[in-house]
Order: sequence, then C-alpha cells, then structure tokens
Amino acid sequence: MSKPELGVCYYPEHWPESGWTDDAARMVEMGISWVRIGEFAWSRIEPTPGDLRWDWLDTAIEILGEAGLHVVLGTPTATPPRWMVDRHPDMLAVSKDGQPRKFGSRRHYCFSHLGYKDEAKRITELMAKRYGANPHIAAWQTDNEYGCHDTILSYSDAARAAFRVWLRKKYETIDALNTAWGNVFWSMEYNGFDQVDLPNQTVTEPNPAHVMDFRRFSSDQVVDFNRAQCSILRAYTDAPIIHNYMGRITDFDHFAVGADLDIASWDSYPLGFLEDRSDQGEDFKHDYQRQGDPDFQAFHHDLYRAVGGMRNGVSRWWVMEQQPGPVNWAPYNPAPLPGMVRLWTWEAVAHGAEVVSYFRWRQAPFAQEQMHAGLLRPDGVMAEGGAEAARVSKELLALDDADAGPSSVAIVFDYASAWAWETQPQGQDFDYFHLVYDVYRGLRRLGVSVDIVPPSCDDLSDRALVITPGLFAWTDSLRAAMKRFEGQMLIGPRTGSKTDDFAIPASLPPGIDGFDCKVTAVESLRSSGAIDLIDGGCFQIWREFAETSETVTETGSDGHPALITKGKLTYMAGWPDDRAMTRILDKVCKRAGVETTDCQLGYRRRDFGHYTLHMNYGAKAVTHTGILLSPADIALFDNKAQSWIIKPSP
Amino acid sequence: MSKPELGVCYYPEHWPESGWTDDAARMVEMGISWVRIGEFAWSRIEPTPGDLRWDWLDTAIEILGEAGLHVVLGTPTATPPRWMVDRHPDMLAVSKDGQPRKFGSRRHYCFSHLGYKDEAKRITELMAKRYGANPHIAAWQTDNEYGCHDTILSYSDAARAAFRVWLRKKYETIDALNTAWGNVFWSMEYNGFDQVDLPNQTVTEPNPAHVMDFRRFSSDQVVDFNRAQCSILRAYTDAPIIHNYMGRITDFDHFAVGADLDIASWDSYPLGFLEDRSDQGEDFKHDYQRQGDPDFQAFHHDLYRAVGGMRNGVSRWWVMEQQPGPVNWAPYNPAPLPGMVRLWTWEAVAHGAEVVSYFRWRQAPFAQEQMHAGLLRPDGVMAEGGAEAARVSKELLALDDADAGPSSVAIVFDYASAWAWETQPQGQDFDYFHLVYDVYRGLRRLGVSVDIVPPSCDDLSDRALVITPGLFAWTDSLRAAMKRFEGQMLIGPRTGSKTDDFAIPASLPPGIDGFDCKVTAVESLRSSGAIDLIDGGCFQIWREFAETSETVTETGSDGHPALITKGKLTYMAGWPDDRAMTRILDKVCKRAGVETTDCQLGYRRRDFGHYTLHMNYGAKAVTHTGILLSPADIALFDNKAQSWIIKPSP
Amino acid sequence: MSKPELGVCYYPEHWPESGWTDDAARMVEMGISWVRIGEFAWSRIEPTPGDLRWDWLDTAIEILGEAGLHVVLGTPTATPPRWMVDRHPDMLAVSKDGQPRKFGSRRHYCFSHLGYKDEAKRITELMAKRYGANPHIAAWQTDNEYGCHDTILSYSDAARAAFRVWLRKKYETIDALNTAWGNVFWSMEYNGFDQVDLPNQTVTEPNPAHVMDFRRFSSDQVVDFNRAQCSILRAYTDAPIIHNYMGRITDFDHFAVGADLDIASWDSYPLGFLEDRSDQGEDFKHDYQRQGDPDFQAFHHDLYRAVGGMRNGVSRWWVMEQQPGPVNWAPYNPAPLPGMVRLWTWEAVAHGAEVVSYFRWRQAPFAQEQMHAGLLRPDGVMAEGGAEAARVSKELLALDDADAGPSSVAIVFDYASAWAWETQPQGQDFDYFHLVYDVYRGLRRLGVSVDIVPPSCDDLSDRALVITPGLFAWTDSLRAAMKRFEGQMLIGPRTGSKTDDFAIPASLPPGIDGFDCKVTAVESLRSSGAIDLIDGGCFQIWREFAETSETVTETGSDGHPALITKGKLTYMAGWPDDRAMTRILDKVCKRAGVETTDCQLGYRRRDFGHYTLHMNYGAKAVTHTGILLSPADIALFDNKAQSWIIKPSP
Repeated sequence: MSKPELGVCYYPEHWPESGWTDDAARMVEMGISWVRIGEFAWSRIEPTPGDLRWDWLDTAIEILGEAGLHVVLGTPTATPPRWMVDRHPDMLAVSKDGQPRKFGSRRHYCFSHLGYKDEAKRITELMAKRYGANPHIAAWQTDNEYGCHDTILSYSDAARAAFRVWLRKKYETIDALNTAWGNVFWSMEYNGFDQVDLPNQTVTEPNPAHVMDFRRFSSDQVVDFNRAQCSILRAYTDAPIIHNYMGRITDFDHFAVGADLDIASWDSYPLGFLEDRSDQGEDFKHDYQRQGDPDFQAFHHDLYRAVGGMRNGVSRWWVMEQQPGPVNWAPYNPAPLPGMVRLWTWEAVAHGAEVVSYFRWRQAPFAQEQMHAGLLRPDGVMAEGGAEAARVSKELLALDDADAGPSSVAIVFDYASAWAWETQPQGQDFDYFHLVYDVYRGLRRLGVSVDIVPPSCDDLSDRALVITPGLFAWTDSLRAAMKRFEGQMLIGPRTGSKTDDFAIPASLPPGIDGFDCKVTAVESLRSSGAIDLIDGGCFQIWREFAETSETVTETGSDGHPALITKGKLTYMAGWPDDRAMTRILDKVCKRAGVETTDCQLGYRRRDFGHYTLHMNYGAKAVTHTGILLSPADIALFDNKAQSWIIKPSP
Repeated sequence: MSKPELGVCYYPEHWPESGWTDDAARMVEMGISWVRIGEFAWSRIEPTPGDLRWDWLDTAIEILGEAGLHVVLGTPTATPPRWMVDRHPDMLAVSKDGQPRKFGSRRHYCFSHLGYKDEAKRITELMAKRYGANPHIAAWQTDNEYGCHDTILSYSDAARAAFRVWLRKKYETIDALNTAWGNVFWSMEYNGFDQVDLPNQTVTEPNPAHVMDFRRFSSDQVVDFNRAQCSILRAYTDAPIIHNYMGRITDFDHFAVGADLDIASWDSYPLGFLEDRSDQGEDFKHDYQRQGDPDFQAFHHDLYRAVGGMRNGVSRWWVMEQQPGPVNWAPYNPAPLPGMVRLWTWEAVAHGAEVVSYFRWRQAPFAQEQMHAGLLRPDGVMAEGGAEAARVSKELLALDDADAGPSSVAIVFDYASAWAWETQPQGQDFDYFHLVYDVYRGLRRLGVSVDIVPPSCDDLSDRALVITPGLFAWTDSLRAAMKRFEGQMLIGPRTGSKTDDFAIPASLPPGIDGFDCKVTAVESLRSSGAIDLIDGGCFQIWREFAETSETVTETGSDGHPALITKGKLTYMAGWPDDRAMTRILDKVCKRAGVETTDCQLGYRRRDFGHYTLHMNYGAKAVTHTGILLSPADIALFDNKAQSWIIKPSP
Repeated sequence: MSKPELGVCYYPEHWPESGWTDDAARMVEMGISWVRIGEFAWSRIEPTPGDLRWDWLDTAIEILGEAGLHVVLGTPTATPPRWMVDRHPDMLAVSKDGQPRKFGSRRHYCFSHLGYKDEAKRITELMAKRYGANPHIAAWQTDNEYGCHDTILSYSDAARAAFRVWLRKKYETIDALNTAWGNVFWSMEYNGFDQVDLPNQTVTEPNPAHVMDFRRFSSDQVVDFNRAQCSILRAYTDAPIIHNYMGRITDFDHFAVGADLDIASWDSYPLGFLEDRSDQGEDFKHDYQRQGDPDFQAFHHDLYRAVGGMRNGVSRWWVMEQQPGPVNWAPYNPAPLPGMVRLWTWEAVAHGAEVVSYFRWRQAPFAQEQMHAGLLRPDGVMAEGGAEAARVSKELLALDDADAGPSSVAIVFDYASAWAWETQPQGQDFDYFHLVYDVYRGLRRLGVSVDIVPPSCDDLSDRALVITPGLFAWTDSLRAAMKRFEGQMLIGPRTGSKTDDFAIPASLPPGIDGFDCKVTAVESLRSSGAIDLIDGGCFQIWREFAETSETVTETGSDGHPALITKGKLTYMAGWPDDRAMTRILDKVCKRAGVETTDCQLGYRRRDFGHYTLHMNYGAKAVTHTGILLSPADIALFDNKAQSWIIKPSP
C-alpha cells in the first residue's frame, strides 16, 4: 500500500500568473504532493458561451505538474456562470416555499433541469477531451459538494416534470401508485400521473409515502447527474474519479453516487461542524470549541471509507478539504487550538485516508470566503495551519502500512432511513443521523474501531458485532446476510418498522424471521420524560412497547421490555441515553468478544495497520492507560515493533 | 334522558369489504352503538367528475346498520379529490404570506370560492338524496373540523372579492367604512370598496378595525358554508346534524355555526393538545404528559355544551373523536397512562356528552395517520384503548341520569374577543383564550362546576356568579341581562374596552352604567415585571390604571386599584396569576354563595345529574376529602342513593 | 443662545374643527411653543388625484399660529393615499423574500420608484407653494422616520433597475466591477451590468462586496429622495428643514441625509426601544422597564447632534417625538415611572436639544396607535405625561445657556461600518451598533460627556481622546486628521480591516502608518468562550491575533496581545466585556487627562453650558458624591453660580 500523502486546494485564477511557480515550489517544499484546481473556474474557462479559454489552465497545470505535483482537476459544474442563467432562466432550483434560488453564490441549479444537465455534460466533455490524457492530471473531481447549502431538494417546474416521469417508470399505472401510497386516505387518489405535484406547500403534512418517493427521486437525480459526468470522463481518461462530500448531509444516497466513482472524499471542517451541525449542547460546544467534536470526524472517515466502496479489497477515500484554521461560515468561528490541524490530519490517516488535502493554499482577501483561513495568510506568510501541515508531512514518512483494515464491529448506515424519519419523525427530537451517531459515539467511548456498512451489504462474515439502529425497512440483502451471520446483532429501535411503501408491516415490526417480537405501539418523549431502565440510564426521545415470547433481558422502570434477546439477536426497544448506551454496547461487545476500554473526556484511539493512534481532543491534558497527552496532542504506537513512533507528551 | 353511549370512527373504504361484517360485530360486542363514516371518502364516491359510486357505501351502511349500529354519515367536503383542483385551480386557500395552500393533504379549499361552494352543495345534495331517508343513518356530520390546520383565514383572490362584497353590505358607503375604521389615520382612506385589500403583507401592522372586519368576514364565510349544507340536508332528512369542532380553535364563531346545527361535537385529544396547544410550561407538560391538562377537556366539554345550544331545555353535545392511545401529530406523542382512556370517557359523560366516539376503529398502516392509535392495532388485535372503552361501556349501564344541568357559575366566552386581542394584543403575552382559561382553571381548582355562555346571552337569572374576562365589546343583550341580574358579576380586565368599530369608547372603558370607573391607561408586562397585590399573588401580563369613586377593595403594591366593587359588580383591573386568581375567585364565589373546595394536584371533580365524579389526572395517587384515587383512576358517587357506583381506589 | 422649548405633534384632521381653538389654547397654557402637523394628511389634502383641499389645513395653521404656536409642517410622503397605488402598482417595496409590501399602514413605497418620486416632488411643491411664505410655518419636516419598519432595503424591479444605473455610474465598465468585487471567486463574473441582480434569494450568502454596494446604493436612494424635497422647499421658504430620525436605525447614512437639512431630530421612545432594540438581557430589561436604558437616549442625542452638523459653530437638533406614556408597538408596553417624562425631557435639553416635542397631543381612540398615550387621554383629560411636560416648561425658564458645547472625548460612528458587519458579521453576535454603544456606555459609566463624529471628520483638534471601534475602512479625512491629532486614540477591534471594495488590505489590518501591527487572524466567540484578560475582564464576541513590534501593554490569558500601544495610539485587539471596557477606557481617559467618576446603577450625569444635570434612571434611590436622587428624579447644578437650580431629593 502506498503511503498517505498531503494535498492542497488551489485557485490559480485568483492570483497573478507570475506567482504560480513560486506557489508550486512552496507546496512541494511543505511536503504537499497533490493539488486540486479548477472546480469553480467556469467563468474563466468559458467567459461567454462558446468562447473557450484554455491557455491559463494549460499553463497552471503545466507549472504545477512540472513542480512535481499531482493535479486533481474539477469539473466546474457547481458554479455555472451568469450567462448560463440567461440561457436557461428556469434552471434555478426552487425552495420548499416556492421561491427561486437565485444566481450570486454557487450551486444555483436544479438537478432535474434538462438544459443545464446538457450544459454540464458539454463542459465536462470539453475538459475531458483537453485534459483526459494530460500526464499531470492524476485524478478528476466531479462538481463540488453535492447537497451543500440544502441543494438536493428542488420544487421547480423541472423537478415536478421529472418526478412525474420517475413515478410513471416506478409504478406504471396510477392505480399502483394510489395503492402503494394509500391515497384512499383523505381522498388523495390521483386520476393520472400528471396530477401528482411535489409534496410542498400542502395544507398540513403530505402523505409520507409521497414525500418518501420524492426523496428517492431527488437522490436519484444526483446519481444521474454525477453518472453523466463519470461516463464522459471515462471515455477520455483512466485517472480515478472523485467527489468531495460534506459532513452530515444525508439528502442523497452517497453509496449510490459512490458506485460510479473510484474514490470517496469529504470536506472536513471540525470547528465549523461543531458549531453548525452538532446535536450536543452548549457545554459540549464550549469544551470543544477549538478542537471539534471528538467523534464527528472519525464517523465521517468511516462512513466515507464505506462510500468509497470495496474494490479489489481496498476502499479508497480522501479528505479533499481539511480545515487549516478559523473558517467563515459557522455561527461562531474560533481559531483551532495549536496542534489540532496536525491531530485532524493524523486522525484521517489512521482511518485510512490516502490523501489529506487542505482547503486552501492562500487565504483569498476577497469575496465570500475572505475570512476563511488558508495554509498561508492573505499576505503570503505561512499561517499556523501551514506549519502544522509541514510537520505532519515529515512525520508521515515513518509509516509503512496505513491500511484501515476491516473492524470487527459494523454499523449499518442507510440514507433512505434518514429520509424516512425526517418525513415522519413522530417526535420532534427523532433524527436518524443523531441516533446512529449516538451508537457510534458509544462505541468510540469504549475504544472500539468501527466500520460503517450500507444496507445493501450482503456479507457480514468478517464481523463480530453488527448494529442496525433505526433502519427504516429491511433490505433483501441484509436479511440474507443476517441469516448466515454468526456474530452478535443489536437491532432497533424502529428498525424494520416500515415496508418499502412507507406502511406499517402487516405483522408489525421488527419483522425478523424466527424472532417472536411485535412492536405494538411506540411513543416519542420530551427530554424530561425519559423512561428509566432498571440497570441504569434511560430511554429518551423514543420508546417502543413490545410483545414477545423471547427473553426479556432488561426492562424499563414501568416493566415494559427494553432489551429482548434470542441467541445472537438483541432487540433494543428505545433510544438509550449515553449512560445506557455505553452499558448496553459494552454488554453486546463482550458477548461478541470485542475488547473495550473506557475512553474518558477527550481521549480517543484508533487502530490501523499495525499502529495505534492515541489522541487528545480535550483542552486539558489527559492520561489513559498510562499514556499522558497534552491538549491537541497525539502519540503513535507501532504494535509490531512495540515502540513509539510519536511519543506521548512528556 | 337517554343514557350516554359510545361510538367509533370507521373507514370502510380503507379495508377489504370482506372484513366489514366482522368489524361491525366486534364494535357491537365492545358496547359501541354509533359509527361515523364517509367524511373523507369523496374520491371513492366520485372517482372522476360525475361518476358516482354508491355501491360500496350502500353496502357499508347496510352491514353496519344491520349489526345494530347507528350510522353518522359525513359530507366529504373537507377532502375534495384531486380532479376538483383541476376544475377550480383557484379554489385553494392562500397563506398570509401569499403562498397557495396546495393539494396533498386535506382542507385545501378557500371558504370564499364560489365554484367550490357549489361543488360542496352538489355532493351534499347527492348524498342527502341517496341516504336522507336511510333508516340506519341516525345523524349527519357536515365537513370535518372546520379551522383545523389554520384554514379559516385565506388571503386568496376569492377571499378578497368576497370581503369587498361583505364590506359593501355592512357599510353601504365607503365613507361609512372610512369613518368606522378611522382611516384618516395615516391617510388610509379608500375611494371605493374595490380598493380594499385583505390585511396581509402590509409594511407594518394594518388598521385593527380592518383586521377585525376581516376576521368577522372570515367567520361568516364558515357559517355560510356550513349553513348551505344544513339547508340541503334538512330537505331530505330529519336526522340531527352535527359538526365536529376542535380544541382551542377560535378562528370562527362556533356559536354562530352551531345555530344551524342540532348537536355540537368536538374531537378530544388530551395528550396532543397538552403538547401542542397549552400555555403551561415544561414542568407541567412533564407532569401531565400521559394524562393531558386536567382542565382542558372539561373546558371544551363545557364550551361545546354551550355551542350545542339550549333547545327544549336540552343542550346536545358529543365527543366525536376521543383519543384512544398515542397520536401522531403533536411535537411529542407519548402513550396515555393505563386508565386514561376510561377517565377521559367518564369525564365527558359527567359534562353531559350524549355520545363519546373514539377515533378510530383500527389503526391504519398507511398514509398520514399511520402512527395514530385506534381501538385496534393495525394487525386487528385489540389495543389497550379498546379494552378501556369496552370496560366503560359496561360501567355506563349503571347511570340513570346523566344530565349536565345548569351550573350556578358561568363564564362568558366570546370568539370576537379572541379575534380582537389577537389583532391587538398590546403585550405579546396577552391571549384571550389563555385569560378565560385561567379563570376557568381557577374555578376548577376550587371544585366548582362551570357553564360557558355566549355574549349573546340575554338571561343570567339561573346564575349566582357570572364572569366576563377580556370581553372586547359589550353586547346589547348582555348589558340588558346584567341590569336584571341579581347575582355577583366579576368583570375585566379589558372588558368593554372597545366599541364594535374597534375604537376606545368615548367615555373610556369599562363603560358600565351606574359604575363610576374609568380605565385611563393600561400596561402590558414582561413575566418578570408583575405587580404584587397587597393580599397576595400579583397581576401579570396585563394591568390597568383606573379612576373610580367606587370602593377599592384591593390595590397593587404601588397603590393603584386592583379590585373595585359596587354592590354585585366587581371590576378586576388586571390579569391575576394563579395564586391571586384562586383567592379572588374564592372571594366572589363565597359572596355569591357558591361552595368551594381546594382541589390540589391532579384531583378534579364534576357534579352532574345526582352524581359526583372524582378523577385523578395526576401520575401519583391523591387523596381529597378522604377519597383516595390511584393515578388515572376515577370514582363515582351517587348523591341520591348516597353510595358509590364506582368505588375509590382501595 | 435661545432657550430650549417644548413642542407637540398634532393631527387636526383627526378631530372636529370645533375643538382646534381650544386645543391650541391648552397647548400654549401648558408652555408648548411648537406644533408639528400634516405629515400623514395626504388623503385629506388630495382625496382623489388632483383634487386639492387646502381649506382645512389653512384653517388649522391659522388657528395654531394665531394662538402663538410655531408650526412645523410635514410633507406627507410617508403615507401616499390608496389611489396612488392604483396609479403606480409597482411603487411598493419588495421584501428580501420577494413579497410585495402592501398598502394598509404606512411607508409603502420603494425609494427607487421613479413614478412615486415624481409624485412626492409634486405634493411637496404644492405644499411649498401654498405655505412656503406662511408666517406661522416656522419649520418643515420632510417625510417621516425614514427607515422605520425596515423600509430602506427594497428588492423591487424598480430597485434592481436603479441599482444597475448606480453601478454603471460607479464602475463604468463591468470588468471594473468584476475586479472590485472579486467575482472570479465562484465564477460570479458578469458580462454586463444588466446581469447584476439584487443580492437576495441567493443559494448561500452573496458576495459581501455585492451586498455592500447594494447597501450604499440603498442609502443613496434615501439621500436623493430627501434632497429632492429639500431643493423644492428651499425655492419657496427660508424656514429650516428637519427630518425626524428613529432610534437604532443604521440602514442609511444619516450624516449624508443630514447634509441637506438644517436641523436633525429624532423620535425618542425610551420604553419602546428598551423592549424592542436593546442588546441587554432580561434582568436589565426588568430593572429599567419603566425608565428605559439609561444610556440609549443620551447616545442618540449625541449622535443626532452630530448628524445635525456644525453650521456657524452650532449643531441644531431636536427631539421631534418624545414618549409621553405607554406606547403600543413594543413587545411589552409598561407605563413610565412617574417623573420619567420630565427626566427624559431634561436629559434631551442637557444634550443640547433646541426643542423637545411630545408625541402626541391627544391619544387617538382609533386605528393603529389607539393604545399610544398622548399628553391628553382620549377623553381630553390631561394625562400624567401632560402634567410632567407642563412642569418642565416652567422649570426650563431658569436656564440661561443650554449650549451642549464640544466634549473632549469623541467616538467615530460610521453607518457604512454597520452595513459592512451586518453583511459579514463573521460571528453571529457581532453587531456594529452594539460595539460602539458598548464603548459609549463605558464612557457614561465613567461620567464622561461624549461627542459623536462622522468618519468624514477631518479635524480632531478639539479632542483629548478619540475612539474608533469597528471602523470598516479608513477614510482619507480621518487618516489625515489622525496624523495631525495630538490627543489619545483608541482604535479597534476590526478597525481598518477592509478596503473600500470589501477586501482584506494587502498588508493586513489595521493599516496605520508608522504603527507596526498586523492582524493575522481573527476569531468570533460564543458567549461561554470569552478570553480572559490578565488585568481583569475579558474579550467576548470577537478577538484578534496580532503580530507587532510595538509595546504590548496587556495580553489575554493565552498570551496573545490585547492592547498594543505606541505613543498616542492604542490598538484594542478584541471586544471587551463591561468590566474590561470600564478599565481600559478609564486608563485611556486618564492618559488623555479626561476626568472620570464611577456612575453606579441608574445614576447618570451630563455637563452642558455651565450646568451639570444629575439623573437617576434607576427604580431605587441612588446617592453619588453626596447627591441623593429618588427614582426618576433629577437635580440641576449651576456651575457658574455654584448653586442648585433644581435641588436633589431631600
């Protein structure tokens, strides 16, 4: 396996050409091998329709490549120029409340607009033709951050038309649709597909089956859009194709998009995500304001490793954009603690990242992201993040095997379940990502390394423990894999509680062959209304009432079953709080033969290759099993050589 | 008087015809006498325009009726089918911010749309013709839950046109309107009725007189819509006509709608309403999360008994939909405490309900309400709510007189006042329903049974005490009744503070003949800014400065009059908190000769016929005057026989 | 200098003509000299297009003038009649989310609409012609409260067209615009001015340079609109022209509008502003709920004195509308503490107000402001505010010199900076007004009288200390004045951090010649994440990392420079909390030779002429340097005669 490498995002079009050579030399000097360019440059490539200006891009690629850098070239389809909107005024997405989402920033297109789809293919083919065989282009990126700024769901005329086509293909007859959705309810039956509208602006909530199909359709539109670019690129290049996903975006099925790509990557902004996308409270945000949530990055590393997909025994993934300092887009934008840029980079490596690429090279003094730090300050002086990146580039040389390897514990993550429970939370605090992430955090607090697997997974044989929290509907592949599986399974809450058509299964959830258990009723709970569990902790947010003849291994304080076990299967009839989660996970881990340890505070660990990375995400020093770590510090132990590669804090 | 009976809401169109006979038999077996059907079935009655399909409905009525059930048949006008919107694209209501409220759920019509009004009359007449003489049809329901999902106010073109017609009829000349509204203020004068727009999207607040007329108009549109159906039905049937109102909806005048009906009914969802429509804080919501607010159902029972209206000495009212388990639509949806379905049913009976009808028979596994419990689970097994209903049906047999009878204490409830103070709260916490309900709760805590009366009431002679909190403007009938009245009256705050034209009366409020008192200024208060009263408790939210030569029987800590009394009249110059409310109400009750008792915690009582029902709404056991009640338990005492019919908890 | 006088706002059109003479007599009797009329009377002056009715206004002016009152006549352009919207349907402003802001209240016009601009000029000229030479008209008011109800920014078609014209004038070529805005970022480059849209409804944030130009444009539209009226008026009258500004409105450049006027005035609603426009928390709002924020009025008095502008050594300003009792428009509307109307009036006088004019004469019983107190109650009886005004009118006679004089301490206030940081707060708590006001409050707590100066100020020679918090971009005049200035300067945070084009300066902020300091990074902080300062207090909300070779006189607890000093210059690298602010301001005041004193609680003081006014804004008695003041009381000391004119509380 090749060693992990560093990269950087660079915008030659933002700077005078006279400085490009020096920039390239400084990148190389810092230990950077990869440079991503081009993904926002459409207005410079094609300033007016059909007027193509390749010269500057030829030159930039040449300079960067000649300096020894591998170039990742992005298709510029996330930022169509202003003239495109003149050509296709109806290409704009429309918000849920019926307003156009106008030009003036980025991602101003509806995935369903056929005219813009053609334009995206056109520019992709032009770029592919020109650079497909360029030796410096070592990878391609499609578009940029699908779904960022809430751009998957569009309520435009184009989307409505495409949705009708999609429905006709799926259901063939309108009667089939009416039956599948249960449209007899409230006289919602349609006489034809052309009567079906998008499920926004209804008087009260629309039919969840209607919304669920709209969510599936919307995700499929992204897959199609991305696939069109991949098909074109593959005709002109053998270089791998990548997309850069974001954190906690579940609006489209990343596994489905990833199936057309070679490498998954994501944009990791630990401080921005803590402020903007965390379920944790004020105290937590204060404690980690300069470090980020200690599990959020790891979760996404593991998720996108899975999205990368196993090909020839390897799942390829990168961090395409790594936060290098304060950013500009969160409610609060503090500076990272010194050392965190290094820690974040090392953590990605420990989860198997091939490349960690910083965003961005030099802070731009203008436009929207002028307050977003780079490795260099706006005046070209190296910033603290740059110095940390340079340090890591040297440290990485000591590694000889960074393989992330399969973990014995796996969690099933299912985008469709996120759509389902967003459509029908049934209690305002129920959120699928939150539930899965609570399980993940519980495992991390126990020091367990985790793999994420998709619901299409049909082989669990490598695993000792598989967990399926909140899975909307069973897939055939997962049912089949479960039957063959000999490890422990922890199932629920809410798993298998719907049919594909978004109905309650006739024989009631969870619907597991040979496991006699029916969820007869459920309830959602306000935070003060949690149900204590007799062994400690409680069920919060969600609780189920189950009828079972299997063994009840734990009950709530009101006597209702909380954990129901038969052989390898354990059903969890609620959403445990942190205390109960740790306790329950520890129990199933032990039963599965998975070793656990108690990771307090900001201490975290990750096993990879023949190494263990120890990290301190906390703002205070921490000691775990005799290992002392200063704030933001790491230590790296070689389990083969039984020696420290990077020593703990003295 | 006939004994109270049980009913259920049933949707034969949701289930295979093969199961209808069995369903009917099980209903009867459970002690159910009434079954409501049809109110959402338009798309099955008329799948395409003019294609009428009566067979299935004929069959369903026949099966249910033959099983011995009385059928309530609903007009299906709350759910026009999709093809209706093709016929009348502008029939949709429009939201305050100018957005269409689209097809895809229910209630997607504007009350002012003439085309849809005709369609509603057409389908009503078709149904009336076919079933008006059917012996199984024992009652009719018009539409369903007027006002649910905020559907009274529409800002559509149809509403604008109708509003202009309504104004022209009311004012005759535009000068009269300009004068009545005070449009000279801010040069808002109109030159003609066609210049008057709906009062939304104005730069800052519109003229309150403008809004008030729009609110009156909007209420009148509901009255007209409902009256049109009643007129048609009466031509074909002698069965009583009912509408099912909702909880805490004040957007139209229920007394006015009720005047065209024979029976008032409401849909009682104690847990949903606690979460969704309560002014109480988190602690309260936690304490009652599985029981509901202990006064909310009682208030609505008393309100809708009044809306039912006195005819031949009887005011007829039902619970048309009674929550039987967890629902799906509140922010949190917990399961009721075991026993609560029984308690809720008994409580309705104690307030004079003729029928308590559960919503719904079997939980539907599909569409919007798939998470809403029924008496049966989706798999047809009886749910806990079903078992409790069956128990009540047997218990009810012991009653021989369930007459609610008149109470000695009455509160005036006025929908127009709710519109007025919503239009001009003057302080953000001022809410008319909240104020009246605070008075009601105060009386309930004193164990007093209460009647609600409308502002059109012209006879108070049965009463010992009448209370008029927050009455916008005096009505002639009430003024006349007051003059003749010999009991105690507690008036204010804010009562009589406006003319009908939404202006301050020339001689200042409250404007009571022979009571020398002028409210010279008012103030609204933040929660921390309450004014202590010298005898305990405080005025919160609202306080008035009054000039008076009458007796000041209590003052605020700053010396301003709080209670002003002359003979039978007491004016209350502020909004008392719970402590002051209890104290003040206790004082006026004593003066009126009304007996009080201190109902702590969840204990509540209600006198009816020759019985007293004791209830424990609390989650803990409670003892009151020696009567111990377990959580959710009831006891029923026969005051004539001086014996327990249902004994207290042992 | 003439003595300060009292005025009142009066609406003869609201009352029967028969009462005007009596009203005028009572005004004079109360000691009122000025009366403002006409500003909302368009529909009475011109009921239908072209039908002018001057008679009633002639009469009103005659009656008021003959009674001895000076009349301020307002142009009625804030309330175009309904027929105007028929003539110019597209004259309405459009909200940021694309909705029209309709007729039915006031300010329903877009400043960019050419048709309405012409109408405004037409009515102004008609009034100027008729009354320009009328001897009773002693001043004119243009329009009313520009910017009230968020009416400066309009996203209408008219605004878009005008913005394009404005941009073309500023940039001449589209390339210049693209370069200035940095539109290469995200391919936002335009091919022509006609492609530039207004910066609303973009997918994510628009380019800050785009927004900043839109803010400048929007402010310029107000200047133009106001100037057009001034030009017309000047052709017909020599009376001074005034506009009445509001509190905490920064959406247009008041200095620029003020340059066309003779007198600045503002509408002072201390209780309304406390509830509606204060950054302070619940405790503060409770403590001052009946008095108002003790510094808010003073700040605006000083600000509008500066907006009035220095002409012949005098800066003329008024309070045009003074709150006289409870108002109707804040979230809560309590009554003022007895004495506060007197205190507010005296405070304005102490800041140099020529006239303090109450809003309004008699409380109107109808329309939007029926709950807004006047000097008289709706029934014509004098209200408490009226009695206090009458008292002040007598007290004022004792003054012989009320000149506000220049203060030794000045704060630069810059409207463009408010736009800049609203456009790019970078942390959600960063607000320019809040920052400047925190500095002002700090000085007031030290008993220091303050002047506000505009960023166009080119002479600081009168000052001992000048403070420039959060100044977006240096102006040439200020840079020049600084060079010549010999007093102390306290600069920052965020001062000089942008170029005029909204970019980070090439050599990094703050960019002061001869002061070696570079802000290399910044961070925004959640409230719990403040940085302690080693000498006490902390930096909150905002903190900067500075590289410097100058003297670091204070650091944060993490060692980063907090205060950097070189000679007369001190740079403050963060936003101090109250404790640190007081300490730092005290230090620079002492260095500048400015005397300070510790004003605790609600005690405040103001030096003017040869007087010192002592005030107690608190609800409890306070003693300062031996002076005891009851709540809401004042005392006035004659420093020349060394005697009390108004004695402290006994």
